[in-house]
Amino acid sequence: MKNVISAVCVECGAEYEATPNTTVCPKCGGILDIKYDYNYIKSQVTPEDMADRHENSMWRYQEFLPVEGIGKRPKLRVGWSPFYHAVHLEEMLGVDKLYVKDDGINPTASLKDRASAMAVVKAEEAEVDTICCSSTGNAASSLAGNSAAAGFKTFIFVPSRAPKGKVSQLLNFGATVMSVEGSYEETFNMSALAIERYGWYNRNAAINPYLMEGKKTVALEIAEQLGWKMTDYVALSVGDGCTIAGVWKGFKDLYAAGFIDKLPRLISVQAEGCCPLNKAIAEDKPWKPMEENTIADSIAVGVPRNATKALNAIRESNGVVVNVSDQEILDAMKLLGRTCGVFGEPAGVAGTAGLKKAVEQGLVPKNATYVSIVTGNGLKDVVNAIKAAGEPISLKPEPERLLKVFKELGVE
Amino acid sequence: MKNVISAVCVECGAEYEATPNTTVCPKCGGILDIKYDYNYIKSQVTPEDMADRHENSMWRYQEFLPVEGIGKRPKLRVGWSPFYHAVHLEEMLGVDKLYVKDDGINPTASLKDRASAMAVVKAEEAEVDTICCSSTGNAASSLAGNSAAAGFKTFIFVPSRAPKGKVSQLLNFGATVMSVEGSYEETFNMSALAIERYGWYNRNAAINPYLMEGKKTVALEIAEQLGWKMTDYVALSVGDGCTIAGVWKGFKDLYAAGFIDKLPRLISVQAEGCCPLNKAIAEDKPWKPMEENTIADSIAVGVPRNATKALNAIRESNGVVVNVSDQEILDAMKLLGRTCGVFGEPAGVAGTAGLKKAVEQGLVPKNATYVSIVTGNGLKDVVNAIKAAGEPISLKPEPERLLKVFKELGVE
Repeated sequence: MKNVISAVCVECGAEYEATPNTTVCPKCGGILDIKYDYNYIKSQVTPEDMADRHENSMWRYQEFLPVEGIGKRPKLRVGWSPFYHAVHLEEMLGVDKLYVKDDGINPTASLKDRASAMAVVKAEEAEVDTICCSSTGNAASSLAGNSAAAGFKTFIFVPSRAPKGKVSQLLNFGATVMSVEGSYEETFNMSALAIERYGWYNRNAAINPYLMEGKKTVALEIAEQLGWKMTDYVALSVGDGCTIAGVWKGFKDLYAAGFIDKLPRLISVQAEGCCPLNKAIAEDKPWKPMEENTIADSIAVGVPRNATKALNAIRESNGVVVNVSDQEILDAMKLLGRTCGVFGEPAGVAGTAGLKKAVEQGLVPKNATYVSIVTGNGLKDVVNAIKAAGEPISLKPEPERLLKVFKELGVE
Repeated sequence: MKNVISAVCVECGAEYEATPNTTVCPKCGGILDIKYDYNYIKSQVTPEDMADRHENSMWRYQEFLPVEGIGKRPKLRVGWSPFYHAVHLEEMLGVDKLYVKDDGINPTASLKDRASAMAVVKAEEAEVDTICCSSTGNAASSLAGNSAAAGFKTFIFVPSRAPKGKVSQLLNFGATVMSVEGSYEETFNMSALAIERYGWYNRNAAINPYLMEGKKTVALEIAEQLGWKMTDYVALSVGDGCTIAGVWKGFKDLYAAGFIDKLPRLISVQAEGCCPLNKAIAEDKPWKPMEENTIADSIAVGVPRNATKALNAIRESNGVVVNVSDQEILDAMKLLGRTCGVFGEPAGVAGTAGLKKAVEQGLVPKNATYVSIVTGNGLKDVVNAIKAAGEPISLKPEPERLLKVFKELGVE
């Protein structure tokens, strides 16, 4: 890979060759970061080249990715998700411009498909036949789906609180699923043990440095879908820290390669009941573990595995932190649905909930451009979707009953 | 619209001007069909032109659609769904070539988005502000989502058996939802009454002739994604009859315009517990109402509203009819998941279940090319997804327990 220079430890700065099996820093255990040769990338591709491409997936950005190609195994079509100018919501919030990136429209219905698609390509390069991860759900189902398409065996560890929709999805994808009766950290540790013991390919996002490189493609797409005119702010939900770190990496890559002329500020949104990273930023102190008290299961991570990269991303971007209540998250589900036709799961819409709160509290200005990333589909968590939306009006199939009900509703 | 000639009744042959509010035949009540000028279409676009287009949605085929443009209101990105060469499943079934069209990857997660996107454009042309439909679920949620994005008010009638996932989706989209305690037919009649009474735009697929024109785009995409080399067979599930009629219309359009040089045979798949159309074909008799006994709620239609068009499509294509049991449908969910990484709802995978059965029973040859359309996402019906997939392996977070379980599973 001529575009990749090395893998650099974010803790101690040690530099290593980037191989398919690269995981954490052998010296200090720190998480590695893939380092690129931006002059080489610039010599290979320009923003104008992109406009001619017909590859409508994350792989349209190969020059920015740590792969030679995507291998021979069949692949799901991941990425190039819809990007909407959210005119109704923009008006409601009173901001200059607001865009919604709907990453719930991916093969397994979440942004995590970007990381799993990358994992599958790297596992193919590593010539293994089994991939493993732990996950609150979306990383798991995305791995199971992407692995199934490519013909890999998959072992997955989920905490027992993971919603049934997500679990049913990965079981249907043929994965062997271990439901761990414990916290996300305990689940993670069980998967680490099994990976070590059985020699499987590791798709734990905070261990495998390539996964963030997959996730960063959402930022590359946002930039291209904005015509390379950068937004002022990007709001998204934060759990383990990998997604926000990936998004930031994507924007930094584009800036370094001269594709965009400024960097956005990140709005890091966590749940009030589980916000160790935002708390660390707000108090300017090291992060501390927290309880996992929120309905937004995908970001209920009390011990974030990618804290260093995430905190760097928020600080480097001169970011804003906002915590939202479960009720604010449920309200955002309905708000996005009724104003944009976009249906997100609780963690998926938390970014929008936080953006709304930040605007209302004056933490960010109204005369600015915003992008809100919806990270997962509302169908992933029907229980909370029902909580957000309420129940339909029940009716016997009788005309006079219909007219009566509609009269009560004020329909003429 | 220079490409549209008229709207022709499929029952009595009467011909009318096609206006945005066109519904059924004023003379006999028959369903209308939009008639095109294929010479005009040919003069406007060629298959080669298509390759240069960057419109990655159903609207890339505007020359084949009954619209001048898509209006000014914001729209969801519908269509241009993934098309996979299903190598693992192809090998398992022993057929020459097998492709899967995953239409669950649409904004509201089903093929019905194509019809609803069309409804929204036509409602905009008709200058109304409220749209209404009855539906077993997917037409409803797709209408609610597409309407919300475009800023229309929506009234929706669903039978009370509709899965909660689908209902929660449309409530989150801000629709007013009437849950009718009765059959699909009773639900349909209630919506017809309300549309008549309140003057709303009618998005009932078997009444509004434009919706089928939206649905046909799935066939246009399949043809283009095959490089305009037509498949021998296309398998899909059949309920109301609108989708199979739309698919057939799409292929016939392309054939008439010289884009493809042969037509495929359709494999019409219904549930054993509700198969009035397939029964009519098999017995060569008029169709009769049936009970609605199947888990595949989207095709549980005992009184198909678009019977004439659907039966014409099956007969004209020299089609094959196959009925599948609920167990065969559940098996197909898992089969598609583990071989393709595609997760479909019961009605969504019924086409694949029927294709498998047709191959195994020798109703269709092995040396042929097949396309199976998956019409809806598995996340729409988690209860049945769990039924299909079983439960995960529960585990306490203890290393020795892990090793024991894996030993029992034969993992070394």
